[in-house]
Amino acid sequence: MSKFIHNLTHELTHWRRMFHAYPELGFTEYLTTYRIGKLLEGWDYSIFIGEDALDSDARVGIPNTEILTHFEQKAKEQGVEDSWLRKMAGGNTGLVATFDTGRPGKHIALRFDIDALPIKESTQPSHTPTSKGFNSINPKVMHACGHDGHITIGLGVAKYIYEHQNQLVGKFTFLFQPAEEGGRGALAMTKKGWLVDVDRFYAGHIGIEEMSVGTVAATVKGFLASTKLNVRFHGNASHAGMNPETGKNALLSASSASIHLYGIPRHSKGTTRVNVGKLEAGSGRNIIPDEAYMEVEVRGETKELNNYMTEHAKRIINSAGSMHDTNCEITIVGSTEEMDCSPSIISNIKHACENSDYIKNIISEASVSGSEDASYMMNEVQKHGGKATYMLFGTKLDYPHHHPFFDFQEEVLPVAVDTFTRVIEQENAYNPGER
Amino acid sequence: MSKFIHNLTHELTHWRRMFHAYPELGFTEYLTTYRIGKLLEGWDYSIFIGEDALDSDARVGIPNTEILTHFEQKAKEQGVEDSWLRKMAGGNTGLVATFDTGRPGKHIALRFDIDALPIKESTQPSHTPTSKGFNSINPKVMHACGHDGHITIGLGVAKYIYEHQNQLVGKFTFLFQPAEEGGRGALAMTKKGWLVDVDRFYAGHIGIEEMSVGTVAATVKGFLASTKLNVRFHGNASHAGMNPETGKNALLSASSASIHLYGIPRHSKGTTRVNVGKLEAGSGRNIIPDEAYMEVEVRGETKELNNYMTEHAKRIINSAGSMHDTNCEITIVGSTEEMDCSPSIISNIKHACENSDYIKNIISEASVSGSEDASYMMNEVQKHGGKATYMLFGTKLDYPHHHPFFDFQEEVLPVAVDTFTRVIEQENAYNPGER
Amino acid sequence: MSKFIHNLTHELTHWRRMFHAYPELGFTEYLTTYRIGKLLEGWDYSIFIGEDALDSDARVGIPNTEILTHFEQKAKEQGVEDSWLRKMAGGNTGLVATFDTGRPGKHIALRFDIDALPIKESTQPSHTPTSKGFNSINPKVMHACGHDGHITIGLGVAKYIYEHQNQLVGKFTFLFQPAEEGGRGALAMTKKGWLVDVDRFYAGHIGIEEMSVGTVAATVKGFLASTKLNVRFHGNASHAGMNPETGKNALLSASSASIHLYGIPRHSKGTTRVNVGKLEAGSGRNIIPDEAYMEVEVRGETKELNNYMTEHAKRIINSAGSMHDTNCEITIVGSTEEMDCSPSIISNIKHACENSDYIKNIISEASVSGSEDASYMMNEVQKHGGKATYMLFGTKLDYPHHHPFFDFQEEVLPVAVDTFTRVIEQENAYNPGER
Amino acid sequence: MSKFIHNLTHELTHWRRMFHAYPELGFTEYLTTYRIGKLLEGWDYSIFIGEDALDSDARVGIPNTEILTHFEQKAKEQGVEDSWLRKMAGGNTGLVATFDTGRPGKHIALRFDIDALPIKESTQPSHTPTSKGFNSINPKVMHACGHDGHITIGLGVAKYIYEHQNQLVGKFTFLFQPAEEGGRGALAMTKKGWLVDVDRFYAGHIGIEEMSVGTVAATVKGFLASTKLNVRFHGNASHAGMNPETGKNALLSASSASIHLYGIPRHSKGTTRVNVGKLEAGSGRNIIPDEAYMEVEVRGETKELNNYMTEHAKRIINSAGSMHDTNCEITIVGSTEEMDCSPSIISNIKHACENSDYIKNIISEASVSGSEDASYMMNEVQKHGGKATYMLFGTKLDYPHHHPFFDFQEEVLPVAVDTFTRVIEQENAYNPGER
Repeated sequence: MSKFIHNLTHELTHWRRMFHAYPELGFTEYLTTYRIGKLLEGWDYSIFIGEDALDSDARVGIPNTEILTHFEQKAKEQGVEDSWLRKMAGGNTGLVATFDTGRPGKHIALRFDIDALPIKESTQPSHTPTSKGFNSINPKVMHACGHDGHITIGLGVAKYIYEHQNQLVGKFTFLFQPAEEGGRGALAMTKKGWLVDVDRFYAGHIGIEEMSVGTVAATVKGFLASTKLNVRFHGNASHAGMNPETGKNALLSASSASIHLYGIPRHSKGTTRVNVGKLEAGSGRNIIPDEAYMEVEVRGETKELNNYMTEHAKRIINSAGSMHDTNCEITIVGSTEEMDCSPSIISNIKHACENSDYIKNIISEASVSGSEDASYMMNEVQKHGGKATYMLFGTKLDYPHHHPFFDFQEEVLPVAVDTFTRVIEQENAYNPGER
Repeated sequence: MSKFIHNLTHELTHWRRMFHAYPELGFTEYLTTYRIGKLLEGWDYSIFIGEDALDSDARVGIPNTEILTHFEQKAKEQGVEDSWLRKMAGGNTGLVATFDTGRPGKHIALRFDIDALPIKESTQPSHTPTSKGFNSINPKVMHACGHDGHITIGLGVAKYIYEHQNQLVGKFTFLFQPAEEGGRGALAMTKKGWLVDVDRFYAGHIGIEEMSVGTVAATVKGFLASTKLNVRFHGNASHAGMNPETGKNALLSASSASIHLYGIPRHSKGTTRVNVGKLEAGSGRNIIPDEAYMEVEVRGETKELNNYMTEHAKRIINSAGSMHDTNCEITIVGSTEEMDCSPSIISNIKHACENSDYIKNIISEASVSGSEDASYMMNEVQKHGGKATYMLFGTKLDYPHHHPFFDFQEEVLPVAVDTFTRVIEQENAYNPGER
Repeated sequence: MSKFIHNLTHELTHWRRMFHAYPELGFTEYLTTYRIGKLLEGWDYSIFIGEDALDSDARVGIPNTEILTHFEQKAKEQGVEDSWLRKMAGGNTGLVATFDTGRPGKHIALRFDIDALPIKESTQPSHTPTSKGFNSINPKVMHACGHDGHITIGLGVAKYIYEHQNQLVGKFTFLFQPAEEGGRGALAMTKKGWLVDVDRFYAGHIGIEEMSVGTVAATVKGFLASTKLNVRFHGNASHAGMNPETGKNALLSASSASIHLYGIPRHSKGTTRVNVGKLEAGSGRNIIPDEAYMEVEVRGETKELNNYMTEHAKRIINSAGSMHDTNCEITIVGSTEEMDCSPSIISNIKHACENSDYIKNIISEASVSGSEDASYMMNEVQKHGGKATYMLFGTKLDYPHHHPFFDFQEEVLPVAVDTFTRVIEQENAYNPGER
Repeated sequence: MSKFIHNLTHELTHWRRMFHAYPELGFTEYLTTYRIGKLLEGWDYSIFIGEDALDSDARVGIPNTEILTHFEQKAKEQGVEDSWLRKMAGGNTGLVATFDTGRPGKHIALRFDIDALPIKESTQPSHTPTSKGFNSINPKVMHACGHDGHITIGLGVAKYIYEHQNQLVGKFTFLFQPAEEGGRGALAMTKKGWLVDVDRFYAGHIGIEEMSVGTVAATVKGFLASTKLNVRFHGNASHAGMNPETGKNALLSASSASIHLYGIPRHSKGTTRVNVGKLEAGSGRNIIPDEAYMEVEVRGETKELNNYMTEHAKRIINSAGSMHDTNCEITIVGSTEEMDCSPSIISNIKHACENSDYIKNIISEASVSGSEDASYMMNEVQKHGGKATYMLFGTKLDYPHHHPFFDFQEEVLPVAVDTFTRVIEQENAYNPGER
């Protein structure tokens, strides 16, 4: 297997840099999806896109039509075929690819997230994507969370299965999921039913913990349940000099809400989080602002703690409305659940990864504190009796995730592909006469 | 004279609706300037545009190059000649037009402001511009302060002078000023020197006070000195779930600043105002916001009161920075002065307007509480010994200025033209043998 | 008359210093009332105290029983007779004194306020009451608004009437009003009916405007209508370390309310004010505060503006409650009305004060911006056809009213007595054969 | 031993109720100290009080002289002997009692805290202290944290040692510590040197966790390091109606600080806490508040996290000062450290408590999240090579600690005495021939 990985390394780097250069935001991954799909088609995968891949109505936080149309047009200009665009139209991005060996065996599902972030990538020469020339070509969009790496790893694993299909049994389902950021895409793929009869589910992330390249965590704990809320305050505009008293100030409602949201009391039962990630209000300097928009996220170590945060957040937002006599509108636009990795999977992974040239060290469990909508998929698999885990792949990070300078060591890519393929081989190896 | 006005009425309505349909924001009035200029050229005026019209460096609050280029391109598409565009490039909009009768007499300056507002005009059928079909064709830009009417009045007066030049003496200077909103354009025209030797200066506004059509105020009091500030807070981004403690929250700095700015203590010596008209902060839901931008305006009945507000505002903004450990940057982007109309002008106006069919009632002085950068021009004229006033022209308003439903009665247009032309006739009538 | 004033000067100083040394808060002026009463008894006035003087139920903002009992006990120790204390018990302080000449003539009412403020008087040697030895003997209570002077002036006028009764006609009513601070006492005296048949009403204040000793303003404009609110927030206590999430934080409700109250938009129709003068919240450092108490005051140039402020204040306070999930209780504890001095009174005063040795200059109208519950009395008199004014008596002030260093020039006292007595003499002089 | 406990039970109840009825705040426990001392004298203990017991200068958060004098006077009236009062004067309360068996053996130190809280105890009949008649007789002071129980347990253990002295070896030091609330007393006793040569240190608390009577935790984790800050803002007073602009509003500084303190970002490395437990500001309704006072507490799971909170708190408080142009003064008035119980002590305790009639269940470690200044003593003992633990004794609580209805099951008292005495017996039993 090491030979396959060794030969693949150059290609992994190439793919990663290509996807890095063309980052796309959640539900606008038209080009990304297309590029993934064309590669998988070449490897005999059955491809499902658009409403064949996900339950369109279960998506949340979809960009508005103007934005979607803009990016569809752009994708068209970038060469995405019309037949693909028609199916993906309206933000039905992402794809599911299946490969059936035809031989009885486990159904293994693998999930890779594909979306980027609304961050302006650094163009400093010290930033490797700049110096090596694969900087984002899309203004204010950046792969700053490593999903370019995730796509790449998924492709590597897919190619392995294609090339080693004769040595494998069972069935494989690849979920190239859109819109992980904001917890908006996983539920829609889950609701399409892909995970109902899955025996093993594997997902993962590169570079979350302080682990060096070669270190892999077999499971994680600590992913937080979360709720994402969009808020609009509607007030009343007036001339700030001539009639300040007739205005109803939506900007101040948003400001009051923001300040008080961070003050939701800490909870004795565990970790909670809150953030107002975006605030836009007002139209002109001398007009009392009549509209304000906020993007809010709360999290909790458990569903109960997340509910605690959500309930407080709603009360605070409503109070901030009445504080300045504005109306407020709260929309839930995304969510994640807590996740519990199946502990029995740990020894399997450890065993599979013995004797690897790439994997130096397997940790049983790592702690994190973000949120992941893969939780919906994992909980679905476990509900139906399957086992699921979420792995971490170590890489040194000079800057944190979601930072304009974010970058990772590309050496993590073969490590991750090696891990996935070894685990697959252990689960679904074809041993004539056995089973 | 009434006959001239009577014949002009249809044209006034036409001009007004044309300008209303093509509103342009301050320093992007390329098409507006061009259209005014072409009309004035037809009436033998000498036209000055670009750096011939204003001191380019004295402008403040200029849109960025990207925006300017966008609108220059658009103006080109709308038919503005290249030679005009070259001169106006970089936001040097507005124009000065002079007319010299060749006979000795007073130098009269007249100022009309030409810019629109960043407001999305209503498309409700009850809104006259909608039902009559002259709604704004430019997205999110609207003549919601009556400057479409002001341009129209200026054109009417200019045509009068052209047609009656043989009956007039002295010299006339028309200042079609850009970027009145935000107090950004007047100082630049003033600094170009147009007002140094002016004997009489007239400006005005339609519809500020509760006066019906036919009522005119000869002077106003109450225009506030004002200072416009742009503020940027620079913090530190971090992942809101994984590392909330390393973020430095610029959104919260802006929110704290906003809330506390409105709390600057009222002043016992007179009227003050404060507004945060725009706030934009943050990039993504789960990222601690590292950048925030605010547009702020303070005002005071006197320069002293405006300074009081400005000093408090600066201290509050800086404190809001340190409150959340962010750096802040404050830029002054506009200002207006207080204005005192020359009282001796009142009886002149009253006398001139006797026996008009259009002007029913002249009020000596009206009270307002906005801000006007015509104050720079008036103070300049008065400093050099000239007299200046700012008049108001009554019209019923169903909605206040700066409102998406703002509209005025077009009957005010002939009233205003009649007032200006009567005053001019009284000041500069050609009486052979006299003077 | 000047001779009477001249001879009285020493006594005026003595009275002023005595009252200054024994300041008493609103509705606890037991000793003050008693001392005034004993002097007036000596001058043959009919004295009304307790429920004979005011409508006890119309008082607002009465201290609690514990405080009242404490000060009643103290007054007893200071020598106030039991018969007086019994009548005044429960905070029914202040007194009305009448003097009827028995001859037909006008009914003139005069009002003097008698309460002090909860301010700790300076004990610096530079403070005259310190250096001259008449500093407040009551901890944290101080005559810092000149009411010690007002009482003194009232006594001087009362003595004048007593000594000149044979030269006067008509009837005189002196209202020594309690609890002017907070606008709590005037309505109760008004409702008792003292002002129904009054022909002329005079009140006044020393030292409000920048007028020197000898200058008197015959009328004032600008006193603001006001509403005083007490607010209590009731939350839930919990251990701040162990169970922060179960607390409902009343301190934060009060803090949010305070900050947002100062941000009530300025009003284009005139002057408004707001203040949170006191905030007390919480019981111990490590307990989430479950109780908070605030003293709030809003004002407006007109009743309409005051209502605007009151309505906004209530909404903000309620929203601050819901912001932190606490209950709030708002009690109106005081109010004042706007006042309009009868303009025809000006020339009377000017005429009466000609040829005075003390009064150097009479101003027709001065501007102020505080609040005065004498407004209730004046409006009552005017409603029934009488005339009323509120005068100002100039004195240099080194420190503003309500300041620990507040003091006034005692030379203002004879000026004020001279003004009142001259006006009285002009209105009610006994001219046998006339009237 | 069970027989000793059985016989003691009635006395334990009596002591507890007596101390409950006479609660005293930190550094004013004059009567409490005296009563403890008189009992211990009767049992042949050497008593150390005043500056013999603690390093007076190492105390922080001492009440002011007026308050101390008041309570010293009260204690005198309640019968505390002058000789005791003289030594304790100035808030040097608490006592250390030693008992030396004269036989070589371990030095065992035991700490019991004795202060009460500024809470008004409920007088509802459903509250047992009310129905059984041992409600607090001191206004607004209450044993709402179980320290009345702690004193009682300490006395029970002390009596056991006295009665069983012939069966024991080594030396015993009892620290009846004042002012645990606020973390103000332990450091002063620690600095006096009592803990330098201690081999074993035991402290404990009743009722923190959800454990029923009979359950004991041998160690705890989770006590938070903490810093207590007093804050004063000094502004400028002015008349809120006449000169709002000259005020510098200390109340608003305190309000801004409060709101923003709760918004200090959560930390990814562990638990943090913040509370503003008290806020007092302003003097009168119509005066811009010039003074404000706050009691603040921050906590962190580690010293690093506590420092993080403290640094943010200081910056926020200073910014809130500059926000309203007031000066601020921050004083550290108390602190606690984190604590790590010696793990090897667990098996000792478990072994000692086998076969008890009272102790049903020993838990190795319980989690808490308050703060404890016993941490100073424990860290001192451990630094010198001794072992230390902090135990919890279960009891059902219908209301949380620091609640006006707080009460515990008195059955916990014999359980705790049994635990302490069994541990002592195991450590210091006299076995002739051994050791």
